[in-house]
Amino acid sequence: MTTISSVLEMQRTADSVRLQGKRIGVVPTMGYLHAGHLSLIRIATQHADVVITTIFVNPLQFAPHEDFTRYPRDIERDSRLAEEAGTDYLFIPEQNEMYSSNHLTYVQTESLAEVLEGKIRPGHFRGVTTVVAKLFNITKPHVAVFGQKDAQQALLIQQMVRDLNFNIELNIAPIVREPDGLAMSSRNVYLNPEERKQSVLLSQSLLMAEKMIVEGERNSQIIKEAVTKLLYSQPLAVIDYVSIADASMLHEIEFLSSGTTALISLAVHFGKTRLIDNTIVRIS
Amino acid sequence: MTTISSVLEMQRTADSVRLQGKRIGVVPTMGYLHAGHLSLIRIATQHADVVITTIFVNPLQFAPHEDFTRYPRDIERDSRLAEEAGTDYLFIPEQNEMYSSNHLTYVQTESLAEVLEGKIRPGHFRGVTTVVAKLFNITKPHVAVFGQKDAQQALLIQQMVRDLNFNIELNIAPIVREPDGLAMSSRNVYLNPEERKQSVLLSQSLLMAEKMIVEGERNSQIIKEAVTKLLYSQPLAVIDYVSIADASMLHEIEFLSSGTTALISLAVHFGKTRLIDNTIVRIS
Repeated sequence: MTTISSVLEMQRTADSVRLQGKRIGVVPTMGYLHAGHLSLIRIATQHADVVITTIFVNPLQFAPHEDFTRYPRDIERDSRLAEEAGTDYLFIPEQNEMYSSNHLTYVQTESLAEVLEGKIRPGHFRGVTTVVAKLFNITKPHVAVFGQKDAQQALLIQQMVRDLNFNIELNIAPIVREPDGLAMSSRNVYLNPEERKQSVLLSQSLLMAEKMIVEGERNSQIIKEAVTKLLYSQPLAVIDYVSIADASMLHEIEFLSSGTTALISLAVHFGKTRLIDNTIVRIS
Repeated sequence: MTTISSVLEMQRTADSVRLQGKRIGVVPTMGYLHAGHLSLIRIATQHADVVITTIFVNPLQFAPHEDFTRYPRDIERDSRLAEEAGTDYLFIPEQNEMYSSNHLTYVQTESLAEVLEGKIRPGHFRGVTTVVAKLFNITKPHVAVFGQKDAQQALLIQQMVRDLNFNIELNIAPIVREPDGLAMSSRNVYLNPEERKQSVLLSQSLLMAEKMIVEGERNSQIIKEAVTKLLYSQPLAVIDYVSIADASMLHEIEFLSSGTTALISLAVHFGKTRLIDNTIVRIS
């Protein structure tokens, strides 16, 4: 595995890989890699000849009050894990290599970026689509792998790729979970033992929602109320949102009619830590 | 010359040219080609092995009241001229090939897009940067050639290329003029004989401004007033703006101090036709 920090060197490397007729797969991450990231890297090795993993904690997607400075970082461990999972090139640029002091250009996907996470975190997705567009232009991939954990992000990147004609195949990989069901996240390290214990409610409430739908419930409000009740059965949970939305345009759905594909998603605080989780349900 | 209308076919063609180790040059245009465009194509042939000329009248950069529907079009003549100038591939997509009914993603370069043309034409440059980003992803060029006639556009595209890490060399080509000095523009065909005659004032007023600076004038206001007076010496001119700005950030300059590079730019209506022109002056 080769580590690269310069944009120009990464672009030259990508050009030279492409000139050999090889396929490039990219896995963009903010580092502090966990089993979820490693599954993305392994998926990339199955769809490309050369895998580039990028690690960049993108300041543009954090609001001033958010956890940018305290976001966990461990480059040595990340390097080892990324290599073991099959990374050929690890791209780790510095902040000033990615954003000049005179950065003025942003990529924005309207409508999809303004609900759910985007409503709670204004500017977040503008930061995401901008940095992903940059990383695509730097790593020149044939295929890019993102996780379903960030469902709205995955949807926005699919929309951006279509709208801006990025010639890139997207692979959205399933959520990887801890044995008790908690979705893998770099932010899970923030949880103290009691918060960690209660955080299992996120996946449990999604399972309950799925079960209600399988058993015939079609009224979203009833499902959301049951989910809310379950989440609030433990003292530490503070809910940002419980959403049941159309899985392509993210409009909230009132009645789950036959043929609908719904994204059920949650954002819940446990102490200072904000966790998200989701599941996609196809109504038969 | 091969004509292509499909995005996918253009991307595959670009990939195949790149795999042969050849350099691609692109000249994005809105068609109705004139000597200015043809000079851009000839410059592209000098910097690339394969030249792609694109013709697309981009609805996104026109405001509702502007001349999108009446913008002049002549694909047969354009094809002949583009080929004669050295185009290898002519990319002419339909509207619905470029914008889906669910297009949501925009590229925006702040600050630079909000003055001069951007102030008079809100949304114009968002349309320009968005379509140029798309055309870059479709034609995958090593080098792109734009005209200095659209000075602010050239500056915005340079900024976008830097900010989003497009791995593309930009070549900004000098303005080509009619024998009497009028800058070449597809919109010149709109002018009636009297308007055409008076439109020579644009280039003449820029020459006068340059002469005043050479002769020692450093107060922008005095120069702008002289330009305004000259433009209004003919009855048909209606001025949108006369600007003397810093040539990199487009801040208006009051005093032309030594070492400054200034963009002197004008937008003037003659009847229903809006013309622009500019010159860059380095203060020694």
